[in-house]
Amino acid sequence: MTDHGNATNHGKTTIHGNAAQRANTTNRRTLLGGAVAASVLAGSGLAAAGPAAAAGPARPAGAGGGPVIGILLYDGYSLLDPTGPAEVLSRLPGASVVMIGKRRGQVRTDTGDVAIVADRATHEVDRLDVLLVPGAGERGTTGAMEDPALLSWIRRVHGGTRWTTSVCTGSLILAAAGLLRGRAATTHWASAEYLETTLGVEYRAERWVRDGRIITAAGVSAGIDMSLYLAARLAGEEVGKGIQLAVEYDPAPPFDAGDAARATPEQKELALDLLARSQV
Amino acid sequence: MTDHGNATNHGKTTIHGNAAQRANTTNRRTLLGGAVAASVLAGSGLAAAGPAAAAGPARPAGAGGGPVIGILLYDGYSLLDPTGPAEVLSRLPGASVVMIGKRRGQVRTDTGDVAIVADRATHEVDRLDVLLVPGAGERGTTGAMEDPALLSWIRRVHGGTRWTTSVCTGSLILAAAGLLRGRAATTHWASAEYLETTLGVEYRAERWVRDGRIITAAGVSAGIDMSLYLAARLAGEEVGKGIQLAVEYDPAPPFDAGDAARATPEQKELALDLLARSQV
Repeated sequence: MTDHGNATNHGKTTIHGNAAQRANTTNRRTLLGGAVAASVLAGSGLAAAGPAAAAGPARPAGAGGGPVIGILLYDGYSLLDPTGPAEVLSRLPGASVVMIGKRRGQVRTDTGDVAIVADRATHEVDRLDVLLVPGAGERGTTGAMEDPALLSWIRRVHGGTRWTTSVCTGSLILAAAGLLRGRAATTHWASAEYLETTLGVEYRAERWVRDGRIITAAGVSAGIDMSLYLAARLAGEEVGKGIQLAVEYDPAPPFDAGDAARATPEQKELALDLLARSQV
Repeated sequence: MTDHGNATNHGKTTIHGNAAQRANTTNRRTLLGGAVAASVLAGSGLAAAGPAAAAGPARPAGAGGGPVIGILLYDGYSLLDPTGPAEVLSRLPGASVVMIGKRRGQVRTDTGDVAIVADRATHEVDRLDVLLVPGAGERGTTGAMEDPALLSWIRRVHGGTRWTTSVCTGSLILAAAGLLRGRAATTHWASAEYLETTLGVEYRAERWVRDGRIITAAGVSAGIDMSLYLAARLAGEEVGKGIQLAVEYDPAPPFDAGDAARATPEQKELALDLLARSQV
């Protein structure tokens, strides 16, 4: 007995035919890609051969010649907020994604279940092409909003970015840093009132909102949609579409339950309860 | 000048009205949730007070009384494959998500840009409610498929799971472990031919495929859709819908370019090129 997602199934034979051709291409390309990478990086990743060399285990930011995307990790962020955009934006030609924390080392999510490594500390970073501030539960969001040094770093880095972006309640942190004065923005549906009333930002119930060179995304998963838009702004629409195909983003959720505007009060209550109870 | 995603905008006033009510609820609930969590875990997360206590920095697996979801990290996985499902499944009531590596410590993605911490080593884990095997580029996938100890661990753990799952080329690894004999499965579109011809698995071009207690998802982002389906199987449809609303998964990609069945050969070529060049 099998079961399956409701994605359209047309053209299956064509997929197989093309996939056969592509499989050879993939092997060749991947080997080629590996060779190119090896000429830039030492095999261990511990040091690069070129002038962009930097200490630490990560690929040196900027070594690829493309945009450098810095993602701020702070205690209690929600896992998909930084990782959806990192997956998308890391596929931009020559791009580097760097995870940045108050200090180098592990930074744990809102649930406490997962830690991503911050490969750079904020004091080591003052120039980024793209800054992304993820969202969090109340503990994480409040913690970041009440950290003057962190807000000051966000303001300083924002001065030199091409794009400053947020996902979910990350826009509340941008607002706390003073970056959203007189601007329109979005956030997680449950924080919309707070963004508008307490922080004085014009809220828009959109998947993402661009105002000048600031782009804010709605809750959690909206960072993926926003990042594809941003990818196209940085490298053109064909590349944006290519990345969408590369990560096979042809969404087919089993339910049509993600839009707060169409949810019942009981459904919202349950969603908030699930969030609250999963957080530490 | 502003710009925005193409999400529907109806009911904006209603959102605000409900958000105002919910904002109070959020504060109360989150504080309540925090208090409940604190009674289970020590504040530092280094040790739990109850009998479910375990060494190590992560929330003890199983402490919440819900399903224990183990996600296998191996060198070169693609970032969204484990993190999309982890975001969704960590919201299940009482669930624990644990990242598992060959050894404890940092495990880096295919691009080399990001490392997630494996809080447990495979030799420490023999029982899981859900096992999830993410996908990777060619280097990572091949590395896992050619690791007899890893495949043996997957087989052993699969013996006791309620659900064994994969994202993207993770299904190739399940096949290499012998779990997909005589079964239908899916994978990233570019690996479909390999799954079918070389590994002898019946490929289906679906967002996810359930066959018995094995669920395989298509490429990268499909893990999110699959996980919502799995969440509903584990905790009921209302909870699945509640999690979808909690992570605001109301997808609105800027392009309609994620379906390989409708992509041109040139678009597939570009997608594979972007993947290959971003990988180390």
